[in-house]
Amino acid sequence: MPSTMQDFPLSVAAILRHGRRVYGRSECVTWTGGAEPRRATFAQVADNAERLAAALQRLGVRQGGRVATFCWNDQEHLEAYFAVPAMGAVLHTLNIRLFPEQLAHIINHADDQVIIVDDSLVPLLARVVDELPAVEAFVIVGDGDGAPLEANRNGAPVLRYRELLAAEEPGYEWPEVDERSAASMCYTSGTTGDPKGVVYSHRSTFLHAMAVQSASLVGITEADRVLTIVPMFHVNAWGLPYGAFLSGATLHMPGPFMQPQHLTEFIARERSTLASAVPTIWNGILSYGEQHELDLSSLRAGTSGGAAAPRSLLEAFEERYGLRIIQGWGMTETSPLGGMAFPPPEVEPGTPEEMDWRLKSGRVAAGVEMRIVDDAGRELPWDGESVGEIEVRGPWITGSYHRDPAPEKFDDGWLRTGDIGTIDDRGFYQITDRAKDVIKSGGEWISSVELENLLMGHPAVAEAAVIGIPDPRWDERPLACVVLRPDAAATAAELADHLAGRVARWQVPEYWTFMDEIPKTTVGKFDKKPLRARHRSEDLKIEHIER
Amino acid sequence: MPSTMQDFPLSVAAILRHGRRVYGRSECVTWTGGAEPRRATFAQVADNAERLAAALQRLGVRQGGRVATFCWNDQEHLEAYFAVPAMGAVLHTLNIRLFPEQLAHIINHADDQVIIVDDSLVPLLARVVDELPAVEAFVIVGDGDGAPLEANRNGAPVLRYRELLAAEEPGYEWPEVDERSAASMCYTSGTTGDPKGVVYSHRSTFLHAMAVQSASLVGITEADRVLTIVPMFHVNAWGLPYGAFLSGATLHMPGPFMQPQHLTEFIARERSTLASAVPTIWNGILSYGEQHELDLSSLRAGTSGGAAAPRSLLEAFEERYGLRIIQGWGMTETSPLGGMAFPPPEVEPGTPEEMDWRLKSGRVAAGVEMRIVDDAGRELPWDGESVGEIEVRGPWITGSYHRDPAPEKFDDGWLRTGDIGTIDDRGFYQITDRAKDVIKSGGEWISSVELENLLMGHPAVAEAAVIGIPDPRWDERPLACVVLRPDAAATAAELADHLAGRVARWQVPEYWTFMDEIPKTTVGKFDKKPLRARHRSEDLKIEHIER
Repeated sequence: MPSTMQDFPLSVAAILRHGRRVYGRSECVTWTGGAEPRRATFAQVADNAERLAAALQRLGVRQGGRVATFCWNDQEHLEAYFAVPAMGAVLHTLNIRLFPEQLAHIINHADDQVIIVDDSLVPLLARVVDELPAVEAFVIVGDGDGAPLEANRNGAPVLRYRELLAAEEPGYEWPEVDERSAASMCYTSGTTGDPKGVVYSHRSTFLHAMAVQSASLVGITEADRVLTIVPMFHVNAWGLPYGAFLSGATLHMPGPFMQPQHLTEFIARERSTLASAVPTIWNGILSYGEQHELDLSSLRAGTSGGAAAPRSLLEAFEERYGLRIIQGWGMTETSPLGGMAFPPPEVEPGTPEEMDWRLKSGRVAAGVEMRIVDDAGRELPWDGESVGEIEVRGPWITGSYHRDPAPEKFDDGWLRTGDIGTIDDRGFYQITDRAKDVIKSGGEWISSVELENLLMGHPAVAEAAVIGIPDPRWDERPLACVVLRPDAAATAAELADHLAGRVARWQVPEYWTFMDEIPKTTVGKFDKKPLRARHRSEDLKIEHIER
Repeated sequence: MPSTMQDFPLSVAAILRHGRRVYGRSECVTWTGGAEPRRATFAQVADNAERLAAALQRLGVRQGGRVATFCWNDQEHLEAYFAVPAMGAVLHTLNIRLFPEQLAHIINHADDQVIIVDDSLVPLLARVVDELPAVEAFVIVGDGDGAPLEANRNGAPVLRYRELLAAEEPGYEWPEVDERSAASMCYTSGTTGDPKGVVYSHRSTFLHAMAVQSASLVGITEADRVLTIVPMFHVNAWGLPYGAFLSGATLHMPGPFMQPQHLTEFIARERSTLASAVPTIWNGILSYGEQHELDLSSLRAGTSGGAAAPRSLLEAFEERYGLRIIQGWGMTETSPLGGMAFPPPEVEPGTPEEMDWRLKSGRVAAGVEMRIVDDAGRELPWDGESVGEIEVRGPWITGSYHRDPAPEKFDDGWLRTGDIGTIDDRGFYQITDRAKDVIKSGGEWISSVELENLLMGHPAVAEAAVIGIPDPRWDERPLACVVLRPDAAATAAELADHLAGRVARWQVPEYWTFMDEIPKTTVGKFDKKPLRARHRSEDLKIEHIER
């Protein structure tokens, strides 16, 4: 039986219309490094988005065409966030920290037609400018030097954002789009292979923005001023720009000024009520605060995501600044909001018990469905103990990748997150390892991360990485790779004893190796691939101890 | 360009799964009139919903089949709210206050196949039991007398809810449904003609439940205990049951105990944090509180809708109980959330200015688009002054009626609300009249409601209704129908003078008639149809005064 409801598409244009009409006075405030910040109302941002769409259309961008951004978090990037999807084109936010070969690869893989680039980033983009055969125009934000792009092999024109907009009038008529068509795209970081493109739809973007407004999650409202530190090239800045236009929250944009000094000055001066960043940034603010007086009193909360924040970080912010940092969990593939670790309501704020809840990876967000499955693909109970791979599905979860169905990443309609963990009977989940790093021993799983953290808690240990190595009897057994502190000493047996009291005996490694340094990825994480390769080529000196 | 997002349907089953798994400990608490209330966790409600679906399937209910409820707000009604849509059938909530002929009409118009009826309401339903040829079974909630239904002409069996569920096991497999298919239906009250059926989809129900969670609107969370006084047969109880399963808010259900004594005892005993009711109920609580000590301290807010609440009501709750009542606006056609009148964040709580904002009809909710149009269908500016008919569109707004496309109710994809009002530049709207009651005079609109309120503010006036009557020069002019208080006296000229200082001179009526009583509808509203009929048949004695 059909319903009588209107067949009304969920779209980025609808988000833009709401922000403009209902919250036209809310602002996008862009930090300029000390002088007065730049201010634009949502109404002005919407006007500029209409001008930008007209300009892009004049450049030949059509429905479905890709427009990339190579930008910081600022007003112009926000204008592109609305203009490009609302005109029916696809916004491709480029990570400014990619290696040149990755950058060229994803620009070409996505068929980017126009690239909007911040003048400060022109040199970075110029390194690949001759490897981009499909790019038809570069649009520079700011008045800085554009020469490094000029001599590109295509002869693609290098234009100025300001001039393009000045030549247009507001009033672009947003087309009606199919809500399942592409609105924006973002590539995964590709730590485990080539970057993969996730293509968000108008529908998923709208629904995710509704979730960002949810009182059970971030719950932003017109009373908020949200310092968006998480980059706009990183999963749509966690959905905050779109959530802001639905809710009226003012956006604080740091531009290129990502240093703690600037961020904390921004907060103090503009009275940010919420700030969202990865743990590294929070850590930087904490260190900076040890030497400087900070005023974070306007913040009602902080949010942290992208990696697990250590207890010491959350505790330090709570104790020194009375600031509650809430962790969220998600991936490029999940738009990203999968869940946030707000403690249950009966838990007393400020207690150690509350901190235990806040150290969970998250609690399943409304709109997301989650399950954990074992190696055989069997669903495991939500008992807080059974360990399996976390799988998710829902209207803002990806079901494939751009030009790459990647069936190995999916399980009967569910996305395999590659994260290993537990879920309790209230939907709180705890990620204990990455699937590729977990050690499968005798049908049970051993968390490499847990062993590493315990080892690094030993006073003699500087770094530790644990990998699984083949074992004829147990399938896999853990090999502990240890870097001792200078002038410190510890034997494998001593370190094994250290672990023995802290994990089940069968989890304690019997294979050990000592080295000068653990190899690391470009973002500073332990890189276990070279360790595994060295083990395979028998290039590691291994001690075997009896357990 | 297609997105890579999963094609995941928004559905009532998804809401149910979330409530069961993430908020399985939250409760539905049903008041029993003084003894201990009945408690069921969301997990138990979900189990019972599965049993109910199995039982209904056994009774022959198939996808798209209609299952009606004739019930109070209680646990069993909540179970039906989930079981019926999640199994792919359509929940039809029957208004227990309908006249028998209307009740029979809508049951037959909707093709209700099964009716779930509370035992206390059996006598009401029995009045029409022989006029329901399509009904195949009655299911009685409770152990009360079912005999009045037994002798129905169809020989439809009269079954017991409790026994049906006891015969089934949990574990019903919810089918995947098309999100645009029907989930539930509700008929309009039909004050201006036959009741019309609005059929909500799974999609609209899910989206509306997301909106109920929005921090800018009701914003319910797991910390809330929501006293749902608004009947579940009234636009899905404003979406609170579905919002509760998405957010984990405990539901407080008053059952048949709608008297202020019970409601306030419920609040005090179970520490409700939110209560939602029409102004009449709030008024009853206020009057009751004049004679009794009330503890409303657990309420963080109240919500009011269905009709405009007078300033005195909102002020009295604020002053006496520190309780902030927020008005919402919506219709059966709008699911119902169209907007709520939360003041903007810069307005100081507790000030007269704040109260002015709270007396607005609402502020456009994210997900709803609104416009006002004049008689010629031209869109008017959002300047807070231009008066036109309010039109809305969006994913939870109806686009037609069940078996009745009613094109006169729609305007190029927008629902004509029949409400006349203004919108300001921040999306706050103020309804001044119903379209059918507004008086169109010389190209300008005169609000009948405003004149009535001003007249009833005169000490000699008990009741006043103002209708438009044909006028050769001005198209229409207002006719004031006045009931004087016993022992009070006032002439038409005196009353006209009273108005003259308060509205524009051209709005002051020159036609007056005095009567003993204004005719009223069954719900106590002024009924202007008989007044217009009497005017047409020259049955009113009219005084014409010079202005």
